[in-house]
Amino acid sequence: MDVAIVGVTGYSGTVLYTLLANHPEIDQINLYGHVNEGEDGTVRYLDELVPGFHGQHVPIQKFDSAQIMMDNAAVFFATSAGVSSQLAGDFIDADFPVIDLSGDYRLTDPAEYEKWYHKPSAPAEHLQKASYSLADFPQETSNYIANPGCYATATLLGLAPMVQADLIDPDSIVVDAKSGTSGAGKKLTEITHFTEASDNLQLYGINTHKHIPEIVAQLQKWNDEVQAIQFSTTLLPLTTGLMASIYAKVKPGVTQTKLMKAFNDDYADAPFVNVLDGQTPDLKEVVGTNNCDIGVVFNPVTQTVMVISVIDNLMKGAAGQAVQNFNHLFNIDEKVGLPTLPAFV
Amino acid sequence: MDVAIVGVTGYSGTVLYTLLANHPEIDQINLYGHVNEGEDGTVRYLDELVPGFHGQHVPIQKFDSAQIMMDNAAVFFATSAGVSSQLAGDFIDADFPVIDLSGDYRLTDPAEYEKWYHKPSAPAEHLQKASYSLADFPQETSNYIANPGCYATATLLGLAPMVQADLIDPDSIVVDAKSGTSGAGKKLTEITHFTEASDNLQLYGINTHKHIPEIVAQLQKWNDEVQAIQFSTTLLPLTTGLMASIYAKVKPGVTQTKLMKAFNDDYADAPFVNVLDGQTPDLKEVVGTNNCDIGVVFNPVTQTVMVISVIDNLMKGAAGQAVQNFNHLFNIDEKVGLPTLPAFV
Amino acid sequence: MDVAIVGVTGYSGTVLYTLLANHPEIDQINLYGHVNEGEDGTVRYLDELVPGFHGQHVPIQKFDSAQIMMDNAAVFFATSAGVSSQLAGDFIDADFPVIDLSGDYRLTDPAEYEKWYHKPSAPAEHLQKASYSLADFPQETSNYIANPGCYATATLLGLAPMVQADLIDPDSIVVDAKSGTSGAGKKLTEITHFTEASDNLQLYGINTHKHIPEIVAQLQKWNDEVQAIQFSTTLLPLTTGLMASIYAKVKPGVTQTKLMKAFNDDYADAPFVNVLDGQTPDLKEVVGTNNCDIGVVFNPVTQTVMVISVIDNLMKGAAGQAVQNFNHLFNIDEKVGLPTLPAFV
Amino acid sequence: MDVAIVGVTGYSGTVLYTLLANHPEIDQINLYGHVNEGEDGTVRYLDELVPGFHGQHVPIQKFDSAQIMMDNAAVFFATSAGVSSQLAGDFIDADFPVIDLSGDYRLTDPAEYEKWYHKPSAPAEHLQKASYSLADFPQETSNYIANPGCYATATLLGLAPMVQADLIDPDSIVVDAKSGTSGAGKKLTEITHFTEASDNLQLYGINTHKHIPEIVAQLQKWNDEVQAIQFSTTLLPLTTGLMASIYAKVKPGVTQTKLMKAFNDDYADAPFVNVLDGQTPDLKEVVGTNNCDIGVVFNPVTQTVMVISVIDNLMKGAAGQAVQNFNHLFNIDEKVGLPTLPAFV
Repeated sequence: MDVAIVGVTGYSGTVLYTLLANHPEIDQINLYGHVNEGEDGTVRYLDELVPGFHGQHVPIQKFDSAQIMMDNAAVFFATSAGVSSQLAGDFIDADFPVIDLSGDYRLTDPAEYEKWYHKPSAPAEHLQKASYSLADFPQETSNYIANPGCYATATLLGLAPMVQADLIDPDSIVVDAKSGTSGAGKKLTEITHFTEASDNLQLYGINTHKHIPEIVAQLQKWNDEVQAIQFSTTLLPLTTGLMASIYAKVKPGVTQTKLMKAFNDDYADAPFVNVLDGQTPDLKEVVGTNNCDIGVVFNPVTQTVMVISVIDNLMKGAAGQAVQNFNHLFNIDEKVGLPTLPAFV
Repeated sequence: MDVAIVGVTGYSGTVLYTLLANHPEIDQINLYGHVNEGEDGTVRYLDELVPGFHGQHVPIQKFDSAQIMMDNAAVFFATSAGVSSQLAGDFIDADFPVIDLSGDYRLTDPAEYEKWYHKPSAPAEHLQKASYSLADFPQETSNYIANPGCYATATLLGLAPMVQADLIDPDSIVVDAKSGTSGAGKKLTEITHFTEASDNLQLYGINTHKHIPEIVAQLQKWNDEVQAIQFSTTLLPLTTGLMASIYAKVKPGVTQTKLMKAFNDDYADAPFVNVLDGQTPDLKEVVGTNNCDIGVVFNPVTQTVMVISVIDNLMKGAAGQAVQNFNHLFNIDEKVGLPTLPAFV
Repeated sequence: MDVAIVGVTGYSGTVLYTLLANHPEIDQINLYGHVNEGEDGTVRYLDELVPGFHGQHVPIQKFDSAQIMMDNAAVFFATSAGVSSQLAGDFIDADFPVIDLSGDYRLTDPAEYEKWYHKPSAPAEHLQKASYSLADFPQETSNYIANPGCYATATLLGLAPMVQADLIDPDSIVVDAKSGTSGAGKKLTEITHFTEASDNLQLYGINTHKHIPEIVAQLQKWNDEVQAIQFSTTLLPLTTGLMASIYAKVKPGVTQTKLMKAFNDDYADAPFVNVLDGQTPDLKEVVGTNNCDIGVVFNPVTQTVMVISVIDNLMKGAAGQAVQNFNHLFNIDEKVGLPTLPAFV
Repeated sequence: MDVAIVGVTGYSGTVLYTLLANHPEIDQINLYGHVNEGEDGTVRYLDELVPGFHGQHVPIQKFDSAQIMMDNAAVFFATSAGVSSQLAGDFIDADFPVIDLSGDYRLTDPAEYEKWYHKPSAPAEHLQKASYSLADFPQETSNYIANPGCYATATLLGLAPMVQADLIDPDSIVVDAKSGTSGAGKKLTEITHFTEASDNLQLYGINTHKHIPEIVAQLQKWNDEVQAIQFSTTLLPLTTGLMASIYAKVKPGVTQTKLMKAFNDDYADAPFVNVLDGQTPDLKEVVGTNNCDIGVVFNPVTQTVMVISVIDNLMKGAAGQAVQNFNHLFNIDEKVGLPTLPAFV
């Protein structure tokens, strides 16, 4: 099978390329630029753009939706917000398989998209054809997969069993999330300038983070009592990895045992989700993998459960989940092509 | 004035030495070892023990409480838990000024100390003579100052105005605290091994951290409705700095304006506490200073206030606050000898 | 094919396990402890010992050379210095395939081993049966592979073409090498305590580093004019990666062009070695791979060539090269099972 | 005494402000912008521009050389290359005291400046009125101090005794220098983007670094046998601190003892320079100080001396040395206002 990547030069795109290059069901990866790349006559090649990608002399071709559909079985968008909303319409109209790593089709309401993203939305009829697909909760989907955001993934996997089984006060959810700098992308910014970010913690997007609405929408699908969550994001002095520290008051009678039963029920058949009983995972134990490790610690004194959910933001939080969703879509075993052993050092 | 330090070779002790060496009211600093240092005939000197302390050829003398009281106007204990409980009795009996940076006299009940510290307590009558003194809330104290813990300081300064003015639900307090590795001291441990700690987040002491009881005890002095707090600590991949991310549901009718009034009232005359309205401080903006910077952000959607409180764990969280408490005790302007401009880079 | 690892719990051993677990020619990995592991009746399992190794419920069996040879086609020693010298004799006597990642069989003279390692040597007749095998210069070997050290690998690959082609003054070689902390292993030490190592550079083993003699011995095999090298090692505030910055005066008439010809000739068929002409590689572009990237920059003003050679110290510098040597020994394509695309972020 | 800073918002400028704010001979610091700051009617204040500088509500005034001379006793330029060459002429013509932290007046030949800096030079007659002043080698100067560059300072202090006493082969000098990212300034660049710089080493300015000509010029003043040096710079994953690792062949008969005699003779009266005999300093032991710590290690096997010279690039390498030069110029004890005890953690 040949597949296309649009936007390979971002961090998620590069990780995605590496995963697909090692995927046994993929024959060839074709690359397409979404802006001017390849348009001025001088074609650029992947090995010139990514340090260390020796031998990957793959051209970045001009974006052309008809050509992409002719030459590939599926297309991955690893583009920034605001790109696939403008470019993906042809694929939706043709019902061509798309896995979209960006946020452009995660919300169903154009007005809500524009409120949180401050960009023009894709048309409502296109939004409604997309399936928001948390890959560890496999479901029937359309051919347009809206791959969840990194913060949303860690948060939703940490909350799902408790929200589904109605074990927590839906009005008490607090998520103190932290991420490495690769989540902020390649764009040069002051908060990701090394001299500023090193030895530092910086909060950003307080109460305005784009991932809030997709989290709340998914929680509401599971339990319509959830109205809102308190959610903050802190930039860590490291490149890769994301931790969601989740707190909630439990409902009367809930215990560690009942909590663990809910988590174990949900994730018994989820090969990438590992649940720790009364312990917490280290961030680094998932870096380099498609895993989500979750620690569940109930505090009887405060009647509060703390859930620590860790992922690699570029893998499970982006490219890894995209491949997992691709595997689902093409009826390939979901584990194929996805690492589960961390580098750790 | 001459002063003594017991335990100068730890991180807090070294920072304390530097502050006192630059303090205009201090003539000489005498150093004392609490274990075998200086006892085997070979006296050790500070400049041999701390890299870069060229010219500080100050001997570590044998601990002798009578001699210490004869030669000094005050003594600082910068020792680990379990030391001053065994050594400080003579000073208490003589009502000699002590600033104790350790946790040994922070709790008033021996049984509670032994429950949280797993070490023998100082005698109850000695514990009761100590004053737990959060230096930015100056008060009448005894001559034995129990200097607050680093996590306790950031948490209490972040919570004080809201708890005192009864603005938050006392049952809803969540503190997600994070600290650099220097807070864990010089002892070699697996979680502070560079290869493990770098690029990582590690939680520790979940629901069992020693600072929890001193926080709750102080909150109860301010507002007896507080029964417990949900409190976690995460080890950061950086050496210096501590952030307490505090969440609580507000009481009905509380707004950002009312919150800010409470903070500004409390800290109008506190030269080291800076309050940000609707913004959050970066960790690094207080490193190297005795400041506590506090950001207050109310979220009307969740009726939750988020307070971000940052300190340098070795300064305001240890040695700086100790000097501030020393200044209070000796009627010196509290600002003397204490830096307020961060290095930042 | 089944293979054995002795010493899987160190950093190199863990990386080796991951590589072998993904190696298509390996059916099963058997693990053996070299000390007391598994000896007290309570068998330990890999997934209990390595965070994040969920599902790798592989027992650490008691070391037994006869049993190991019965159950495996080859054995990897990923042990510290001083272990295989005591344990590997049976394998040598039986001419059983061994890949030894430690330094115990890299030197041929017992006295020299004891001078540099301060430990008892393996017997001289055993040392002489081992083949020091720099995997990117494949050669006929015995069945006992002494896998080169990490510093030696980066340094030798950077120097080889120039020394072999006699392009540099053999008396002028300076190697300023730097490595991440994982090279120092899991043992807790002061220089690898996070608070000391972070934001710091620390030199160690000045003129006494164990890798010096194996480098000089190999250089002398290529060019007997080399007598000694000036070599220093600096500990970096990062976990993984090693850079050798190499300087030498060129012989008269040598130019950038002649230098590049020597490098390109040597590495034309080396799939893991990439040479940059007049540019220098970043350390991180090889992390996670078995590559060695080498930059060659001639300075006509000083008649000095600077060569920057970077490797992942646990991959090309340890486990990766071990697998590459294993592939050579078993006539498997050397590229099998070895990653070449870096994670980069 | 009142003093002026032009360019306070850069990293060196901010450190300089902090030093001057704590300098007992300085009454007031006046700040001036060199570009548009303060020109559009909305004056900016220091406390708005530097996080954590609470209470430093000092306006950035419009640059006006006449006004600056009227209101101040001296002016510091903490500007980027290419600024003081355009702005400082009036001060030179008036023989007004200037300490210039930039490189604009470090070279005496306009053509050489333009070759290395790629910017228009100050006029030759102005260049010749400036004094290049390595503060630890105090000398008679003009009123225009060209403060040395950070790399130049560490390198020159490490080489001076050996070059002056003619102990090394002048053709054999190799300097492998490494610096934290703050040396690259606040400008956002790809190599200082956190995701790129973290866990990485990146070389830059190979054989073209601006500090090379000032180093060679100063060495030639001491010993006209020196023609050139081999010099490279590596960007470290830390913010503050600079290490020059210096290698040279010694002349016949030179020993560790003779080397140490030369270093001790030169630095006997230098309060900020500390020399280690046969040991090497850690980078971090000088961070936060105006010190230069130097380790000298002779290797008899290679007849090579390795000198490790470490400084805080913003202190001794910029603002600290500027204050030391200011002290010299105004006959203040050179130690005044300059820290010598490192923070270390």
